[in-house]
Amino acid sequence: MIEVHAFATPNSVKVPIALEEMGVEYLLKPVNVRRGEQKEASFLALNPNAKVPVLIDSEGPSDEPFVLTESAAILVYLAEKTGRLLPATGVARGRVFEQLFFHASALSPAFGNAGFFRRFATEPQPLAEARFVGEGNRLLDLLDMLLTERRFMAGEAFSIADIAHFGWLWRREFPGLTLDSRPHLARWFEAIAARPAVQRALTRVEALAAQA
Amino acid sequence: MIEVHAFATPNSVKVPIALEEMGVEYLLKPVNVRRGEQKEASFLALNPNAKVPVLIDSEGPSDEPFVLTESAAILVYLAEKTGRLLPATGVARGRVFEQLFFHASALSPAFGNAGFFRRFATEPQPLAEARFVGEGNRLLDLLDMLLTERRFMAGEAFSIADIAHFGWLWRREFPGLTLDSRPHLARWFEAIAARPAVQRALTRVEALAAQA
Repeated sequence: MIEVHAFATPNSVKVPIALEEMGVEYLLKPVNVRRGEQKEASFLALNPNAKVPVLIDSEGPSDEPFVLTESAAILVYLAEKTGRLLPATGVARGRVFEQLFFHASALSPAFGNAGFFRRFATEPQPLAEARFVGEGNRLLDLLDMLLTERRFMAGEAFSIADIAHFGWLWRREFPGLTLDSRPHLARWFEAIAARPAVQRALTRVEALAAQA
Repeated sequence: MIEVHAFATPNSVKVPIALEEMGVEYLLKPVNVRRGEQKEASFLALNPNAKVPVLIDSEGPSDEPFVLTESAAILVYLAEKTGRLLPATGVARGRVFEQLFFHASALSPAFGNAGFFRRFATEPQPLAEARFVGEGNRLLDLLDMLLTERRFMAGEAFSIADIAHFGWLWRREFPGLTLDSRPHLARWFEAIAARPAVQRALTRVEALAAQA
């Protein structure tokens, strides 16, 4: 059995989307980050970094349950376990990793920090807000340009790179960013959001927040 | 032939270190980021994101030269091409990806932003500086704790996860962070820095800055 410890967050949602796309059953365990449950001892035992999501696979690569953190590392693990959504070789495989790390190192921190300085800073930090909102806009323009040449983020096939980018694009209101004047990115977002597996995952994840 | 377009930066240095460790010859092409050469048209044609490093492999997975960006994606590509420094299966493989994404999504942006707000912000942004310096310290403490149980970042074997973390640890003066009171991390850093392949790569990369 696969357990996913998660909440309705940009990084959490990637894992249920991947599992729904791969047709793998899973148990979704809520970690209410609004109440700080990610900092409780029981959760820190799973991830000392105090971040959702965490995956626990009772049929992992060893006899013990395999506990894995970092949403993109979980995507790679699930893709290799199922043989789905990550080409085994070739240019296309390189492009998937390129987008996974572009998302992790650039887009995700820009969006997260832009949202923080817009919404949670105890005093205005205008230079910081401008830095991260500006960077978020620059990165969205790069993705829009990429999607003039590609159907999906890493090429012509849907992959875990699309799932990685979808998490923050789905939550783009938090940093106050939009798809306006980015027609290729808007086309991509609508196509991903319309996938039945994505809709099933969003319904399950949003229910966690509604119940909380 | 493999070309690496790079400078003496935390992300650039990872690629020469990996190539030296793997025993692969390469041509190192300087991109002087102090003079803004990463924003020139010839470089943007390689990487529209205007970031070093970029790898060009004339014997890549297709007939055309394979141009790859994102330092960690380059590490994965080189590891899979050579069969070195990334376990093919098992728990150890998952741990390498977990650390690669922990580095990309957490440590690298915290260090980069801490250094920016300490050194380059045109007006003091004390909350922003405190946020990123504090996060950098938190992450270094997590790595120190991890290394009480592991010889290397992803387990008992040296891997591309060590190379990824080494880049920013090598440049920890930029964000003003230290290894003080982190004995396990200090032990790890000294062991990595002493490796002959790492020393060869650092010599080559530092020469780029000295010539610039």
